[in-house]
Amino acid sequence: MSRKQKPISSDIAWSTKDRIEVRGKSLPDEILGHFNLGDLAYLQLTGKTPTQAESNVFNAIIIALVEHGITPSALAARMTYAGAPESLQAAVAAGLCGLGTVFVGSMEGAAKMLYEVLPADAGDVDLDAIAKQTVADHRARKQIISGLGHPLHKPVDPRTPRLFAIAEENGIAGRYVELMGKIQAEAEAASGKQLPINATGAIGAICCEFGFPGHIVRGFGVMARAIGLVGHIMEESENPMAIELWQRVEDEATAHIRPE
Amino acid sequence: MSRKQKPISSDIAWSTKDRIEVRGKSLPDEILGHFNLGDLAYLQLTGKTPTQAESNVFNAIIIALVEHGITPSALAARMTYAGAPESLQAAVAAGLCGLGTVFVGSMEGAAKMLYEVLPADAGDVDLDAIAKQTVADHRARKQIISGLGHPLHKPVDPRTPRLFAIAEENGIAGRYVELMGKIQAEAEAASGKQLPINATGAIGAICCEFGFPGHIVRGFGVMARAIGLVGHIMEESENPMAIELWQRVEDEATAHIRPE
Amino acid sequence: MSRKQKPISSDIAWSTKDRIEVRGKSLPDEILGHFNLGDLAYLQLTGKTPTQAESNVFNAIIIALVEHGITPSALAARMTYAGAPESLQAAVAAGLCGLGTVFVGSMEGAAKMLYEVLPADAGDVDLDAIAKQTVADHRARKQIISGLGHPLHKPVDPRTPRLFAIAEENGIAGRYVELMGKIQAEAEAASGKQLPINATGAIGAICCEFGFPGHIVRGFGVMARAIGLVGHIMEESENPMAIELWQRVEDEATAHIRPE
Amino acid sequence: MSRKQKPISSDIAWSTKDRIEVRGKSLPDEILGHFNLGDLAYLQLTGKTPTQAESNVFNAIIIALVEHGITPSALAARMTYAGAPESLQAAVAAGLCGLGTVFVGSMEGAAKMLYEVLPADAGDVDLDAIAKQTVADHRARKQIISGLGHPLHKPVDPRTPRLFAIAEENGIAGRYVELMGKIQAEAEAASGKQLPINATGAIGAICCEFGFPGHIVRGFGVMARAIGLVGHIMEESENPMAIELWQRVEDEATAHIRPE
Repeated sequence: MSRKQKPISSDIAWSTKDRIEVRGKSLPDEILGHFNLGDLAYLQLTGKTPTQAESNVFNAIIIALVEHGITPSALAARMTYAGAPESLQAAVAAGLCGLGTVFVGSMEGAAKMLYEVLPADAGDVDLDAIAKQTVADHRARKQIISGLGHPLHKPVDPRTPRLFAIAEENGIAGRYVELMGKIQAEAEAASGKQLPINATGAIGAICCEFGFPGHIVRGFGVMARAIGLVGHIMEESENPMAIELWQRVEDEATAHIRPE
Repeated sequence: MSRKQKPISSDIAWSTKDRIEVRGKSLPDEILGHFNLGDLAYLQLTGKTPTQAESNVFNAIIIALVEHGITPSALAARMTYAGAPESLQAAVAAGLCGLGTVFVGSMEGAAKMLYEVLPADAGDVDLDAIAKQTVADHRARKQIISGLGHPLHKPVDPRTPRLFAIAEENGIAGRYVELMGKIQAEAEAASGKQLPINATGAIGAICCEFGFPGHIVRGFGVMARAIGLVGHIMEESENPMAIELWQRVEDEATAHIRPE
Repeated sequence: MSRKQKPISSDIAWSTKDRIEVRGKSLPDEILGHFNLGDLAYLQLTGKTPTQAESNVFNAIIIALVEHGITPSALAARMTYAGAPESLQAAVAAGLCGLGTVFVGSMEGAAKMLYEVLPADAGDVDLDAIAKQTVADHRARKQIISGLGHPLHKPVDPRTPRLFAIAEENGIAGRYVELMGKIQAEAEAASGKQLPINATGAIGAICCEFGFPGHIVRGFGVMARAIGLVGHIMEESENPMAIELWQRVEDEATAHIRPE
Repeated sequence: MSRKQKPISSDIAWSTKDRIEVRGKSLPDEILGHFNLGDLAYLQLTGKTPTQAESNVFNAIIIALVEHGITPSALAARMTYAGAPESLQAAVAAGLCGLGTVFVGSMEGAAKMLYEVLPADAGDVDLDAIAKQTVADHRARKQIISGLGHPLHKPVDPRTPRLFAIAEENGIAGRYVELMGKIQAEAEAASGKQLPINATGAIGAICCEFGFPGHIVRGFGVMARAIGLVGHIMEESENPMAIELWQRVEDEATAHIRPE
């Protein structure tokens, strides 16, 4: 075959015998001891060192995604650990596999919706009109609005006002946060239902303020949850529930066809 | 079946309509805006808030694990993303699956070895004698010593002196760090080869100073690398290499059996 | 909380002290020694034992999906195995994670497209008109047609005529296979390009003849490829390429930023 | 860097414009329509076409591994599907990640134990003495014997006599099957407990009769279970249990710390 090779390259990191650089900084001399983990994540993902304000807000949104209780994702990780305790990494991987459109994807959905109705380079626009149109369009398509509604936290998701306050205090809150609020008010008025901005909606809006591309947003949830899952696996190793749950499920689920 | 159910429980987090607590702290009021990501990871995994000294050292060891260049793990993630760009979480999961005994496991191996030869409750012991014995035992079993040696970073892995210095400055360095150094010196003398303490060896030793259980140590690498992998996937989405590599491999690997 | 539990159930299998049934059949007495693996897969997925004709066609389409050379999926599995050889299952899992919309999803896309333009209960319809309309619609949306085109196998994917012949010989080929052919002819005429029905297009059409739901189709690819990946991991354990590829990539990809 | 590249190669498959070969056979002409899935798996993994007797036994042992009810692995897959229904492949991957030392690994353990105490090239040996010694060694190390014992199927795992009968009828049963029986009898006598040869023990012994390398054996379980998991995900899509289980667990597990 006469296929011509194309070059490949990566700008993230390099190392030689005595040096290691990540994103243009010496890992031993400029990163270790100088960054906290959230700031290093910001550097790894964006190539930039966050300002103090950016650091405050970014750490808060990632932290809000670490631990959401015994989620299906945590259960998948615990079930996996029960079968392969020697492969902790595979248990975390199993838990991450389910962070798709249903749970963490709403964050990505909110960010993409906001960018679509309010492009980053939009000039002077009427946010009320945009909110009205957005809600009307979703209702016409019988589509739920990403980032609104929560099965438990009603009428307010307690994380949302706090995240917005942190964004505000640090000068990061702007038109996207404002627009998300207007969309929520409009959606509640139009539907007559309680539709709080949930944590993923708040984070989606704040991500737009940062200007993060829509598809990176799910990645924030994935890396945060990896930390949470390691915590669940540690607890499972000391106070297991997976085997007990398995046996309960097996007993109940097949009782209708299992002869006694 | 008359199987009796056993209770299940988790102490990590709970939520009600208007409250969310993680590790005994209110997520909105006591965590968001008060913790950086590294400290929250420490809380999630240990149940404790780190002191400033613990925070400094813990953030440094996790950060040292985030980004190790275009590793096999990063390549697995990039290959996966090329086939399923809509499932970023699955690409991270694929990348994590390979963090086993060969690459990240050496950290766990180092910690377990150190605990074995120097139990946490050991009284006054002769570290030189322990180091000598440890090296002799490994040589007798023809077993490599976890945490020593590096294919590229010789005679010194530049991360190691920096990590040990950070541990020292923060009062965390103790007998395990000292013992690791003695084991290295003894191993180099016995083998006549350059065997630097690599980053995973340094981190393994520092984890022993914290008293972290051996099996948690791999978890640190897994959660850190999840952050690194999101960075690689972001770059792959903008500057891809997976498809090009695939085609090169396919061409080369089957040339010997493929008719022209 | 006063949440009321809903019942859960599964109809796939049950076991007691001395009996095991899968899909209503005794595993020891009616399945082992009586089924081949393809037929058992059909039973597991559909709840029905295939006729001989169904068995012939079903085995052929699954087999066509097992091995596609050194794909990105195979490379992800090999890279993972290099890092965690003790977790073969995690290496297969990593390889499967990438079977998404780009590679195996085209099969699902083809089946869903065919069902959409020709519902299973459609009466007497004009297949030529449907093909014309389908191609026109895709061209208007600038959307590629799932199941058409192949980078290498042109003007014919050699698997397609063979799979269609097997379906034909076994009385399974019908309107969906015919329609797929008409769509291809129309697409080639409209675009002036060679657009062979590729293997996933052929399999998608045959799946519609069976009446398999669209979302099961990707599952066929996933289970088939699991077999293929075990083969690649076996070869990697004897004749490895992962570490060599990694080192080549690292060298090349960072040469532009790495000091000499 | 002056690193010299090493060649890479794969012998599994190749393709050109109009030909595709797998393991030296034309996929369209010699495989599709000529192989069933089990036989193709045998070809993919061993490079050889099975004889009829080998086909009978190989299909039986793989089929015995496909479906084991609502296992932790099936629950991990269902939990993952609940969060990411658009990524069926990731749900299967999550389910596979847990096929480690606890559940499927016992098969690998049994095969490795048998090869160790009875190498393939062993001449005329006393199987009774080997069985006695093997049990004594395990008891001295307080180690359980892989492939013996089952929590439910007592005193006999109904799959085992059937699998051994199929091996016998096809002329595959030999010294390894005989030795496994002797080890079981000896272990029951020594312990005074019912220790049936479970399915993974039976399969491990039969794999030794084939001469399969020990590390391939887990791969059989992994590929078989991939088929089973697709069946569970299909059922979950029609009759879900994951969300209900999650809510039950969350309610129960945090009741002790959740204020209400």
